[in-house]
Amino acid sequence: MSMMENTELAPNPNHDPEGHHSPIPFSILYLGVGSATPMLGRHQTAQLLTYQNDLFLIDCGEATQYRLIEQRIRPGRLRYIFISHLHGDHYFGLAPLLSSLNLSGRTEELFLFGPRGLDEVITTIFRVSEGRLNFTLHFQPIDPDEAQVLLDTPRLTVTSIPLDHRIPCTGFLFREKPPQPRLLRERLPDDVDVAVLKQLKRGEDVLDETGVVRFSAADYTQPGPPPRSYAYCSDTRFLPALIEQVRNVDVLYHEATFLDDHGERATEVYHSTAREAATIAREASVGRLLIGHFSSRYKQFDGFLEEARLVFQETYLAIEGEHVYL
Amino acid sequence: MSMMENTELAPNPNHDPEGHHSPIPFSILYLGVGSATPMLGRHQTAQLLTYQNDLFLIDCGEATQYRLIEQRIRPGRLRYIFISHLHGDHYFGLAPLLSSLNLSGRTEELFLFGPRGLDEVITTIFRVSEGRLNFTLHFQPIDPDEAQVLLDTPRLTVTSIPLDHRIPCTGFLFREKPPQPRLLRERLPDDVDVAVLKQLKRGEDVLDETGVVRFSAADYTQPGPPPRSYAYCSDTRFLPALIEQVRNVDVLYHEATFLDDHGERATEVYHSTAREAATIAREASVGRLLIGHFSSRYKQFDGFLEEARLVFQETYLAIEGEHVYL
Repeated sequence: MSMMENTELAPNPNHDPEGHHSPIPFSILYLGVGSATPMLGRHQTAQLLTYQNDLFLIDCGEATQYRLIEQRIRPGRLRYIFISHLHGDHYFGLAPLLSSLNLSGRTEELFLFGPRGLDEVITTIFRVSEGRLNFTLHFQPIDPDEAQVLLDTPRLTVTSIPLDHRIPCTGFLFREKPPQPRLLRERLPDDVDVAVLKQLKRGEDVLDETGVVRFSAADYTQPGPPPRSYAYCSDTRFLPALIEQVRNVDVLYHEATFLDDHGERATEVYHSTAREAATIAREASVGRLLIGHFSSRYKQFDGFLEEARLVFQETYLAIEGEHVYL
Repeated sequence: MSMMENTELAPNPNHDPEGHHSPIPFSILYLGVGSATPMLGRHQTAQLLTYQNDLFLIDCGEATQYRLIEQRIRPGRLRYIFISHLHGDHYFGLAPLLSSLNLSGRTEELFLFGPRGLDEVITTIFRVSEGRLNFTLHFQPIDPDEAQVLLDTPRLTVTSIPLDHRIPCTGFLFREKPPQPRLLRERLPDDVDVAVLKQLKRGEDVLDETGVVRFSAADYTQPGPPPRSYAYCSDTRFLPALIEQVRNVDVLYHEATFLDDHGERATEVYHSTAREAATIAREASVGRLLIGHFSSRYKQFDGFLEEARLVFQETYLAIEGEHVYL
């Protein structure tokens, strides 16, 4: 497939330079990286983020459920779905997916985040079919004008990222919470109290009755691995305001619909070029940049990679069916 | 593919037994023959009927536009779309298809026939995207309770077929108008008037001034080929009232979601078995029966063919990507 030519996959950092191997799986699977015009072998936007055992679907172009099945992922495992905006190439697979979940007998609740209006579409579709969902679908509308925490789990937060598109559109920032320090158990006496261990794990010093430090957290723990983060930004014009919000993320996905020679066209239709995506990445000092949402006018993507790497070396193509590991 | 095993394609009657080769192409391409549960390699309902240069899409399951592109058929050539009912597996590909037609710059009008409510779904989807169609979409709601002529072209009529499903649902009967007789030009004098030729072609005798037959239509024309017809019946319970409406059609497509051992289940969920489909075909004396809409519980379809042929020999499986020629 032409998408595979002359490119390299983003590296899998199975350990970081300081040797902090992170035990919690955190990865993104690219299910579709094409833009709106349908093409054989190139699918519309959908990404699957896995964190621990939770699956988060980010956008859901037509036939996303088939992409999941192809990847041997049971759609029933999904718990959270995020929709960036209401252009069809980012959500036309949602109603079919919900229908199939319903048909398969799902009863677990599902959390859906998206623009106002998405609920009306879904409600209308189910109403005219005289059907009803047999599971609870929690819908949270997203304010497109302000970054907001959409989801806060014990391990992860998801924040919206206001983008600049023709219609209300937000990206999503997945940020791991700082992992607990690792206890250096071997340095502690065997008979130490459990309460002491818990206190140290929270990073607190343990004092004796007189207020003197008995076990210092610095001595008996090692900092946990640095928290990881993934930012998804599609669709958008070049938007310098993004830089602050995605500063230092490990992986930034930023749309690159056009090459720089179509820069005016990109601005006109509220999209970005590869150079612009790379500029955001460089200014925000991100770890790696993944680009996608390529216009159907391009048959090969080498040009995107070349153009972006002139600005930001750590750029990779988002490739359908491939994972990026954080 | 298991769908291909142990079966034969429906024959291509490129001439009929009386040697009336019909010059007008009339065929059906099966784009999807699966039922609602998505499976790899089996798609949801969609059929493309070609008559002369006109393309008629019958139902439009998710990703139908990709099936068309796979078959190298430009979706822009579509002129008429018929939707049987508002279960998603029969129409979730419609909004994506319309979006793509719009994006590709279509300006020609398009004719859409379907249940009331379909217009609301489409309108809602375009409204929330802040988009508008740049071509005229004529929507004609179908009365589910009565057979009605939906379309009347110079060569063809399309009539609705009320079915018995959980929600309002109609099939479609495509009936060619009787072709004009073929003029036996060689039997006529060279200098005969054009008006005479036209009159004979209409099947009328030509009289002289005194009212005596000068050229009889019976002597100077040969009857045209018999008009052809295709009936599409999905989704429905076994419905004996169908028999009259599809009597003598050349090809009947009738859903066969289950085998006979799941007959009660079929009735319960408003579907048919292969035996029931064949019973309709036999009682209606159709030429050939095509069956499809197989439940995902079946991995192979030989059983459907065997069961149906016990009742009606001229049964064939609808196979994705295969044509039936009338």
